[in-house]
Order: sequence, then C-alpha cells, then structure tokens
Amino acid sequence: MNVSFSALDAPLLREDRDGVVTLRLNRPHQYNALSQAVLDALQHEFDSLAKDETLRCVVLAAAGKAFCAGHDLREMHGNRRLDYYQALFAQCSRVMQSIQALPVPVVARVHGIATAAGCQLVASCDLAIASDAARFAVSGINVGLFCSTPSVALSRNVSTKRAFDMLVTGRFIDAATAADWGLINQAVPAEELDAAVTAKVEEIRAKSPTAVRHGKTMFHRQREMKLAEAYAYAGDVMARNMMEEDADEGIRAFLEKRPAGWKPL
Amino acid sequence: MNVSFSALDAPLLREDRDGVVTLRLNRPHQYNALSQAVLDALQHEFDSLAKDETLRCVVLAAAGKAFCAGHDLREMHGNRRLDYYQALFAQCSRVMQSIQALPVPVVARVHGIATAAGCQLVASCDLAIASDAARFAVSGINVGLFCSTPSVALSRNVSTKRAFDMLVTGRFIDAATAADWGLINQAVPAEELDAAVTAKVEEIRAKSPTAVRHGKTMFHRQREMKLAEAYAYAGDVMARNMMEEDADEGIRAFLEKRPAGWKPL
Amino acid sequence: MNVSFSALDAPLLREDRDGVVTLRLNRPHQYNALSQAVLDALQHEFDSLAKDETLRCVVLAAAGKAFCAGHDLREMHGNRRLDYYQALFAQCSRVMQSIQALPVPVVARVHGIATAAGCQLVASCDLAIASDAARFAVSGINVGLFCSTPSVALSRNVSTKRAFDMLVTGRFIDAATAADWGLINQAVPAEELDAAVTAKVEEIRAKSPTAVRHGKTMFHRQREMKLAEAYAYAGDVMARNMMEEDADEGIRAFLEKRPAGWKPL
Repeated sequence: MNVSFSALDAPLLREDRDGVVTLRLNRPHQYNALSQAVLDALQHEFDSLAKDETLRCVVLAAAGKAFCAGHDLREMHGNRRLDYYQALFAQCSRVMQSIQALPVPVVARVHGIATAAGCQLVASCDLAIASDAARFAVSGINVGLFCSTPSVALSRNVSTKRAFDMLVTGRFIDAATAADWGLINQAVPAEELDAAVTAKVEEIRAKSPTAVRHGKTMFHRQREMKLAEAYAYAGDVMARNMMEEDADEGIRAFLEKRPAGWKPL
Repeated sequence: MNVSFSALDAPLLREDRDGVVTLRLNRPHQYNALSQAVLDALQHEFDSLAKDETLRCVVLAAAGKAFCAGHDLREMHGNRRLDYYQALFAQCSRVMQSIQALPVPVVARVHGIATAAGCQLVASCDLAIASDAARFAVSGINVGLFCSTPSVALSRNVSTKRAFDMLVTGRFIDAATAADWGLINQAVPAEELDAAVTAKVEEIRAKSPTAVRHGKTMFHRQREMKLAEAYAYAGDVMARNMMEEDADEGIRAFLEKRPAGWKPL
Repeated sequence: MNVSFSALDAPLLREDRDGVVTLRLNRPHQYNALSQAVLDALQHEFDSLAKDETLRCVVLAAAGKAFCAGHDLREMHGNRRLDYYQALFAQCSRVMQSIQALPVPVVARVHGIATAAGCQLVASCDLAIASDAARFAVSGINVGLFCSTPSVALSRNVSTKRAFDMLVTGRFIDAATAADWGLINQAVPAEELDAAVTAKVEEIRAKSPTAVRHGKTMFHRQREMKLAEAYAYAGDVMARNMMEEDADEGIRAFLEKRPAGWKPL
C-alpha cells in the first residue's frame, strides 16, 4: 500500500492511498471557508494531480462540523477593491473548472452545510455523496451578495426555477431534496457516509484506468457542444479508447466469459 | 404605503404596492387569452418596469377562472396572413424574453389552466407558485398548431422527453407533476395561493435590492454561455456586487452578528 | 388498411400499418447487438422514411429477451483499426442523429435490457415507453470502453451527475428510476407495454399530420440555439404552421365547438 499524508495543520490536507487522493478542507473553526490560502492550495493540488499519471480518483472532503461555508467573508471584507475581487473570483472559478478538467472523477464527500462557494464545490464535482443531515444553500444573497459564480455550477446541475429560487432566497435544501433535484447523487445516514464514499471509489478503481481517463474530460466537454459536434468529438475519443490495450483485454475477457485484468497506470 | 391601481376594465391590470407590481391578465371571459391588446399592454408594462429603479419584484397573475389560455384564436383566425403571424409570434416572443430581461424577479401566480402561450408565460417567469388545482398544457397541437414558441420556454424548464410528450399530445399535467418536473416551484392548496405568493415576494423584498438586481439578468445570461465564458462574466458581476454599499453592510453585519440594513433603492 | 412486412430473417424487421412504421431489431440471440448490418439497415430505413410523405409515426422495438445490448463486441474486436472504429462510431452517431432529424415522432418500445448504444437508442428517440422490468445501463466501462457517444445522448436526457454516475460505474437503473430521471416517459407492466405504445401512437395519429411535422425537427433544433435565435426560428415555423389548411380547420372547429377533420397526408 502506498500512503502519504500532509502536515496536519495545513489548511488543506492531502492523503494518498493507492491512486486515490483525498483532499480535506482543514479550517474547521472557520467552517472551512475558502480563504485565498485554501484556494491556492486547492489549485496547487489540482495542477499537480492533473500531471499524476497514476491517479485514479479524487475525494474532496472536509474537517469539522461543516463541509464548506463558501468564501472567507472576513478576508474579503478586508480587501475592498474591485481588482482584488475580480482576481479572487477568477481564481475561485479556475479552481472549480480545474475539477472538471482533471482526468479522473472527483467525488464530493459532504456533511454538515455546503453554502455559497461550498455548494458550488459540490456542484462542480463529478459525483457527490452526502450525509442525510447535510444541507445546501447559495446564501450570499443574505449578506447582500448574489451568488453569481456559484450560479454557473448550480444551474448546470439543477433545473432553472429551482436554482433561481435557491439563489434569490438563500434558502437551505436538505440532502434528500438535493438528491431529488440532481445536485448530489446520494444521501446516506451520517454513519454510513465514509462507507458509501469508499464503495463508490472502489467501484471506480475496479474499472479500466485508461477508459475512465478517456471518458472523464470528454463528458464535460461534449456537454458544451452542439449535437453534431459532440458526436464527432465523442466518436473520435471512443475510437481511440478502442485502440487501448484495456479495451482489447476487456472485450476479449467478455467474449471469453472471464474477468478482465487491466493494465496498471 | 405607496399603492396605485389601473382602470378596472383594462385587459391588463396593474397594482403598485411598495415596490411590488402585480400585473393581472384581465380578460376573464376569454380565459385571459393573449390578444394583441394584451401583448401590447404587457410589453408596455415590461418596458416601463425595466426603467423603474425602485422596483423590487413583479407578480404575474390573472383574473377569473383561468390563468391564461394562450393566444386569442378568434383574433388570429381573422388575420390569415403569413406576415401577420410572423409579426405576432415575434411580438409574443419579445414579451416572453422581456420577463427574463427585467432586472427583478417575476413570480407567476397560477390558478386554473395555463395552456399554450399561457404555459409559456409560466415557463418564462423566474419563479412560479400554483394552486394545486392548476393544470398545464401546450395544447396547440389539438387545433393543428404545434406550440413552437412555447416549446422554447418549456424545453428550458422541463427535460426533453417530458416536454416533447406534452407538445405532441397536448395533454394536461397537474400542478404536482409540474412541480416534480420543474415547471413550477411549488403547488399549494388554492386557499393558500395568495399567502404563498406574498410570502415569496416578502422573502425577496427582505434581500438587498442591489444584490437581487446584480443577479437576476446575470443568471439567465450565463446559462446560455459555455462554462469558461459564464465564469468570466459571473465573476465580474460578482466583483461589482461586492463593491456595492449593501455587500459592505451585509458582510459587516454578518461579522458583527447583527441584522443588516439595506440601502433603499 | 395498408400493411406490409419485411423478410422475417432480416436483422431489422419493418412493418407498415396506416402510416405507422415499426422497426424491430431482429438479432434476438445476440441481444440485438448493433452490428454493421443492423446499423446499415437502420440508416437505410431512416433515409427512406425521411422521404415518406405519408409517414405519421415510427416505433422502434426489438425481438427476443432484450431491447438492445449496444455494439456488436465480437465484430468490433475482429476489426482492430483506428480508422475502422472512427468510421463505425461516425456511422452509429449518424443513425442516432437521423432519429431526431426524422419529420415524425419516434417512440422507443423498450423491454429487457437497453445497454450502451442500446441505451443511447432509447435516449435518442423522441418518446420512450418501457416495461417496468426493463433496465438501462451505459456499461461499456465494464469492458474497458467508456460509453463516449452514448454519453452525448444520455447527458441531453438525464442530469449531469446522474449521467456521469451511470457512465463511470456502468450500473443498471430500473425502469421506474429511468422514468423519474427523464430517460423514458413511462414504465408500465410488461403485459401492458404494447397497449401503452399503441395508445401513444394513436394519440399522435389523431393530431394534424402537418402540425406534428412542423414541430418535430423544430423542437430539437431550437434546443441547440440561444434563446433569441430559438425564438426567431420557432416563431417563423409557427407562422408557417398557421398558414396550413389544418390550422385553419383546427381553429375553425375549435371556435365552432366541433371536432376537427385533418387533411390526409
């Protein structure tokens, strides 16, 4: 087993275990607010993970009582300049887009509250599993700040009127509603949350690493294309996937009615 | 309190009350069919409201037994010319787009039936609350006229196969189904409809007017953009929102654990 | 009654009955896998149907225990060349897009399993009715092949996280879940499947043929446009629909409170 840990007092903890990297927001007393230091650390990790050819899956988790309460309002308030805010939201938007650009699935492990940019983090992950006690809101409106950048991710997960209602009222939805609306995949009892996340990660790890990598970024890119363009692109990706050793082995194993053995990354 | 009313026999009634404008379709004996006079009146009001800097919220309601039965078929049938119909649908489409372009939320208050362009009105509003006895259809197909312009709004609220099924069969869905499919936000008992709409309006009025205005049009515009463009745009809007007095006050109040007081419009 | 049948041993059966064409995948012992011969036959039929001015509706059905298990893995595996796979996925993508380009509704009649490109067929149809014992998966990932082209159709029917979960795990969803997620319109007991499909087809056949034809392709095309462009296009289509005899008759019948009689195609 290949395991490593980061310093325990860092604002973002990293744990590596057999190709699965868990990033854990670690400002529990600030409800894991996304200070610039946290955003810097997330970007640093995503840039590094993008180059890690042995990576299989990423879990985004959080320490303490909350998943993430969004931006660090105290820090923001202390830097009252338009260019500062423009740079801050550009940085945060880059972090969110880096999740989709990673070549492997990113699973959000959500407990407690996920608000504003914290809810946006959930929306930006490929998959999300939450404690049934988790709650979600885009609540910037309550402090006079419409959650504009979170709305980009939210409205690509949740239907129009539901997303707008959350944005303009700042109201919380519970985990069952979030699952019903498609913001998360699954709500489970709190005591089963780690097991459910581990089960999903292991399900992904049992698949061909190259096949998952062919699909992950393709999936998000084709969603932004018109139908004909999306098909041309996806068809080419799939043809290249077919030429990989794993597709050869996988189809051969299927035809021979035996389990497939994937090539390690 | 600042209240004003329009003439009671007009095809569209307007009531102003503390920054909330209620537009009430007022052709009850024609099930509030959207004659040219009604479309003209709606466009006139939306153009006027777009310039009203004290406006906080709009409610779209209807008099009589129905919300709106769509276009006025008798009037349409009396003007059988391609250029007339092209101009009519262009006018109606402009009315629908004016709802999204308004800088404040528009809430549909729906009772009875909402059919064809009446269903499109509901789909075009930012939020919709309906009596649980309300019913929805895009039923032009029953008179030999596929609801093409309504399909534009419907398919941006409801998933593909559900929207197409409604369009090609003309069938009614009830309010519970409309809520389940995302066409409306909420279905409530008829006797609670006004209270539910008022509660939503008051929820919106309790927010920072400038924050709501920053968010409303941004929300719809970013949905039409690719992800990177949407983030660049939303990030700039949010940075400008941060520079407003209300965001300063809202965040300060939050940090000081006291209620915020918004600057009046 | 106008009825014709194709040869019973062909890989794709065609039955014509009063303007309704049923295409039946007919490789039951291969779970109706989409060999090149089947794709050729489907494309041939769709090209022919596109020109058939008396066509009212198409049903896509399947013989044997399964609806369709996707591509023919044995055939694919025997042609291990990039250019072969590129051409194969381009051909399959053209078949799928031909369904949306047909001027009349295509209804999937689904029983048993619909996997990979079989699930994509369901997603590509305008409407889908399934036995409640049907099951759906995009399971290429299990043989080392991410279902990239199926993801194009799936992600235009089902919300993002649900689609990605299906694609990366290959897991099956049951018919009730498929209906809840919008992948199909309706799940019915197996013994009621034919009756439910027939009822839907008859519902469509009772409508104006010209109105349905005005709407079908318009619906899919406008979904790919920005709002203003979609309205301009849909408004023009609807104006031309108004100039048809059937709209004249339909509105006249409505105003005269009598049933409409449509012009035969």
